[in-house]
Amino acid sequence: MDIATRVHNHKWKIDPIVRSLIDTDFYKLLMCQSVFRNHPRTSVTFELINRTKDVPLARLVDEGELREQLDHVRSLSLGRGESTWLRGNTFYGKRQMFRPGFMEWFEGLRLPPYHLERRGDQYELRFEGAWPEVMLWEIPALAILMELRSRAVLHDMGRFELQVLYARAMTRVWEKIERLRELDGLRIADFGTRRRHSFLWQDWCVQAMREGLGEAFTGTSNCLIAQRRDLEAIGTNAHELPMVYAALAEGDEALARAPYDVLADWHEEHEGNLRVILPDTYGTAGFLERAPDWLAGWTGIRIDSGDPAEGAEAAIRWWRERGERPEEKLVIFSDGLDVGRIEELHRRFAGRVRVSFGWGTLLTNDFRGLVPGDALAPFSLVCKATRADGRPTVKLSDNPRKAMGPSEEVERYRRVFEVGAQREMEVVV
Amino acid sequence: MDIATRVHNHKWKIDPIVRSLIDTDFYKLLMCQSVFRNHPRTSVTFELINRTKDVPLARLVDEGELREQLDHVRSLSLGRGESTWLRGNTFYGKRQMFRPGFMEWFEGLRLPPYHLERRGDQYELRFEGAWPEVMLWEIPALAILMELRSRAVLHDMGRFELQVLYARAMTRVWEKIERLRELDGLRIADFGTRRRHSFLWQDWCVQAMREGLGEAFTGTSNCLIAQRRDLEAIGTNAHELPMVYAALAEGDEALARAPYDVLADWHEEHEGNLRVILPDTYGTAGFLERAPDWLAGWTGIRIDSGDPAEGAEAAIRWWRERGERPEEKLVIFSDGLDVGRIEELHRRFAGRVRVSFGWGTLLTNDFRGLVPGDALAPFSLVCKATRADGRPTVKLSDNPRKAMGPSEEVERYRRVFEVGAQREMEVVV
Repeated sequence: MDIATRVHNHKWKIDPIVRSLIDTDFYKLLMCQSVFRNHPRTSVTFELINRTKDVPLARLVDEGELREQLDHVRSLSLGRGESTWLRGNTFYGKRQMFRPGFMEWFEGLRLPPYHLERRGDQYELRFEGAWPEVMLWEIPALAILMELRSRAVLHDMGRFELQVLYARAMTRVWEKIERLRELDGLRIADFGTRRRHSFLWQDWCVQAMREGLGEAFTGTSNCLIAQRRDLEAIGTNAHELPMVYAALAEGDEALARAPYDVLADWHEEHEGNLRVILPDTYGTAGFLERAPDWLAGWTGIRIDSGDPAEGAEAAIRWWRERGERPEEKLVIFSDGLDVGRIEELHRRFAGRVRVSFGWGTLLTNDFRGLVPGDALAPFSLVCKATRADGRPTVKLSDNPRKAMGPSEEVERYRRVFEVGAQREMEVVV
Repeated sequence: MDIATRVHNHKWKIDPIVRSLIDTDFYKLLMCQSVFRNHPRTSVTFELINRTKDVPLARLVDEGELREQLDHVRSLSLGRGESTWLRGNTFYGKRQMFRPGFMEWFEGLRLPPYHLERRGDQYELRFEGAWPEVMLWEIPALAILMELRSRAVLHDMGRFELQVLYARAMTRVWEKIERLRELDGLRIADFGTRRRHSFLWQDWCVQAMREGLGEAFTGTSNCLIAQRRDLEAIGTNAHELPMVYAALAEGDEALARAPYDVLADWHEEHEGNLRVILPDTYGTAGFLERAPDWLAGWTGIRIDSGDPAEGAEAAIRWWRERGERPEEKLVIFSDGLDVGRIEELHRRFAGRVRVSFGWGTLLTNDFRGLVPGDALAPFSLVCKATRADGRPTVKLSDNPRKAMGPSEEVERYRRVFEVGAQREMEVVV
């Protein structure tokens, strides 16, 4: 595959960005199955949020093209081979992870309508409907916007200029891989679907990781790439579960319990490496302090905001206090990783815990500094559940800059979850 | 075209390196036509000479594969489209540069046998026969050996490692092009066929030059690429003409006259931009001093050894002395060029003369530092006329390290051509 040629061709024909319903993160499907069982009728709103305001998406990306791409996703249904793969493949060592009832529903699914409106230099893009349906919009919506922005920037470049651009980006990825190769016992997966430069580029990065890292590369969060390249599909669960459970909670007591209710449901469905705690939605410290003992028995924890080393140290202390052996526990780092940080964290924690990395945007979209005006630098675009059955959702996170929700609700959550002072950290991607 | 994929494929099937008799330098065909007319029955020996002894060609390149590639060249004949292009195309503004008699002969030509023997870590590769036939072995023989050596080094690399290798090489070429773009009024052509990394790579470099430099890129010496990419074929004449003419000369007086006899024959055949003097075969200074006046009327000069600035200054002085206007004269630099030297020479001579560059090995084979042990660095491989009708040939050049021939003959030539002390310069490529 010649990426530059393909990008060149984008200039004269329509080229769908998302071509499969499984061109999405594996954890979305796991969560979807859980939601399909436990909250099939909860009405949820997902919304696009561009945290990087100085990227004027609506000026860069044509509304017509955006609609064309989104409409194309609505025309997709699960392919036969995709369905066979989901039904028959072994995920995390388990067969038939996706139950027949869920698969039947998924096979009949078309994604629900979207609401798109331009507001100044940004787009308002909203998905409203039954939770299991709208939640599947998150990843394609992000991937489409990221790639349309890439295409817009690449549009006026010559064919060889493009080839050299990709040559530089490839060289950069490879140099990162060469550094990672030096880390003994590394375990790292691709988590870069949502903010990838493009599908082809993610696919290239994944293959380069496989060749360059061998066994140290554990797989990809992208189901389509996992299927096509015969790799492990990787992922567990995300903030949308506690956010929606919390929004649905009646009263402060239920609210305080909501994050544990999520994991109780998850506990029933999954075992082993899928039992990974995501503790930061309403503050990691309080979450661990108040956690029931059965949670300490889980396989690991994912650190997705705040200072990652502090988060891991907190988890280690917590496991010790609860009588667990940290060296048997899995710690997955997945926030704003690049090679330097991976090296640091690996050096600090290898041996003390089972370290693993979910490497996202700076694997699949590190085009920083490669074009004038840094117009291809990745930016912080997210698509979040903002309402559930008419109530606003709230996220606090371990970094106040990643917090979301109406301020009075944020205050209430901070009180209920006993979140004290937090350190602000720059959100890179 | 995806170069890395193709290189990858070399590993499992035979992939001919030279696939056309016009995958050669344009000046070879011009000279061949001249030789075909003036010396069709002169018997000449061409021999491979690896000036870079520490590249153990015979250890790197399998003899069987080398024979296979050389045999493949012997199976080639001029294609119909190729013949049409040579007969019908405009070269240097002139139609029918190749006369019907020559074309008929060329259409029937198969390259003559070769003599190949391993001697320690080097190959002895020799072509003996009628001058117009054996002279056409030079470029394919060099290109085959260079590319087989590249393939040998690339053989154990993984697919993505290869892709990144080419990514780095592309980035390097492009950065050179970006620097050249800054030079006002630049005129530069590709002269990199003989010591290219590979055919596909030369083709890529040529296309990148065209996109990156636009009008400043004047064409390529490679006829096949010129034909396919619709570019100007570039070239004039080379050292083999004076070397063979000199070897054939009876006595010192005839020897002293031989280099001018060459150009007298050329004068009859060509005009305009093809009237370019190559003065360094037996020392530039003496050549110019003793040159007949009609030579000063020629369009330009090609500087191919020695200090290029000194050579150009000598030519400028000579034109002035002979009453010519240097600012109307063409100076073609073609020896060991890379961007730094091109920039210097362009700055120094632009405006004073019409400057032009023939950029060879460091355009089409700059893989320096890209693999361990620098195993892809270009090296100084040549294929020279060493005998003519039983007599050894001699080349002195403006750099004693490029001198060739038996020492007693070298001494005789130095005396006849009154060559004094010469400065030794490193032969890079």
